[in-house]
Amino acid sequence: MINNRLQSCVIIAGYFAYLVLGALVFQALEKDAKAKQENIILRIKESFLKNITSFSPAKVELFVENLMDAVGKELRYKQNNWDFSNSFFFVGSMLATIGYGNISPKTAGGQLFCVFFALFGIPLNIVFLNHIGNMIAMLCERLAKWLYEKGVQKKTTRCLTLLFFLVMGILMFLCLPSAVFREMEGWTYGEAIYFAFITLSTIGFGDYIIGKASYNHYNHFQSMLCIVFW
Amino acid sequence: MINNRLQSCVIIAGYFAYLVLGALVFQALEKDAKAKQENIILRIKESFLKNITSFSPAKVELFVENLMDAVGKELRYKQNNWDFSNSFFFVGSMLATIGYGNISPKTAGGQLFCVFFALFGIPLNIVFLNHIGNMIAMLCERLAKWLYEKGVQKKTTRCLTLLFFLVMGILMFLCLPSAVFREMEGWTYGEAIYFAFITLSTIGFGDYIIGKASYNHYNHFQSMLCIVFW
Repeated sequence: MINNRLQSCVIIAGYFAYLVLGALVFQALEKDAKAKQENIILRIKESFLKNITSFSPAKVELFVENLMDAVGKELRYKQNNWDFSNSFFFVGSMLATIGYGNISPKTAGGQLFCVFFALFGIPLNIVFLNHIGNMIAMLCERLAKWLYEKGVQKKTTRCLTLLFFLVMGILMFLCLPSAVFREMEGWTYGEAIYFAFITLSTIGFGDYIIGKASYNHYNHFQSMLCIVFW
Repeated sequence: MINNRLQSCVIIAGYFAYLVLGALVFQALEKDAKAKQENIILRIKESFLKNITSFSPAKVELFVENLMDAVGKELRYKQNNWDFSNSFFFVGSMLATIGYGNISPKTAGGQLFCVFFALFGIPLNIVFLNHIGNMIAMLCERLAKWLYEKGVQKKTTRCLTLLFFLVMGILMFLCLPSAVFREMEGWTYGEAIYFAFITLSTIGFGDYIIGKASYNHYNHFQSMLCIVFW
């Protein structure tokens, strides 16, 4: 029992230490890249403002084209802010193979580190999730034992525990988060369910991301917790 | 043997039929949404061109802000083109849980369909990949048998087949695609390896996407084939 608890602590602490370490490295590697991106947008704006005197619809067209290309390709620069909470969110969603893609490493060093970090991190994430799964299974066993001791038949016990975890699972992992995200992000219920499903299935398109509406640290850490619990 | 071949054909044909069906439905559902998005960008441009007479740096700032918000949030509209090849690419990368996110459903109907489509499609994709895995394993066994019949020792045979598939795997799934993508997309070798890894691990940030550089159908189908073989 004590051995089990120790193992549990080591796995959880190790996982989070790995996440924090990764977040710090990405932050260090990518901070300069962000400044460079902001510079590119600044330059586009400046060159546009200089050309104000000779200014035609065709030029506006070109300007819009350039800007959209820059923003669409790689410079979603507001979200590309590598502070610690963003960096941690990035690392966590990467190791779960969700990969929203709202931020991603732009430097060659960051990309190389990303490959090696995920190479060991994804198996570690699987071990971690496996551990959480085992803990839930143990809880399930205890519930079954408790019911059995109360005099419930074996077959009914099995059905009841299965039903309990099915309902709890759907509530905790689909309905409750959807309701929370709906409130926090101002999404419709359909959008919230869609987001929850796309995240849980590890597809992670990145079209809906938590913490975008009210972009602050508090929100971000809250979101991180949700994802880790998933 | 004939039974095996029949099963193989059914799985492969079923998988591709499911993909084509999904691609067609998404195309039908999302075509209108694309037109709406183009309208929004058109309106932003028009209102800007109307205000040309009273025009200040602060206004340009606001315009850039609005446009970037629109583009960054949901309107990466050039890529959001639901023709058949894009739709097929979207469906394939979703079922592999890669989820690049370069295109994603915007309508409520599309999002709802996405959830149900993936709910059955992801397991189907796993069955399909499992089948491909089994075929590779059978190939491996045949190679081992052939070597054994040639008089090679059992231990050496095992080592050789393992080495052969390791080297072939790294070549076929990492080095070769990286080289091809590098040539096709004009990426550095590091970027190409990064893309290959992010795709294979099903993270799929969507920061690098094949077929963006020379955006044509030929390229897209080629890319689809690469992904399916992965």
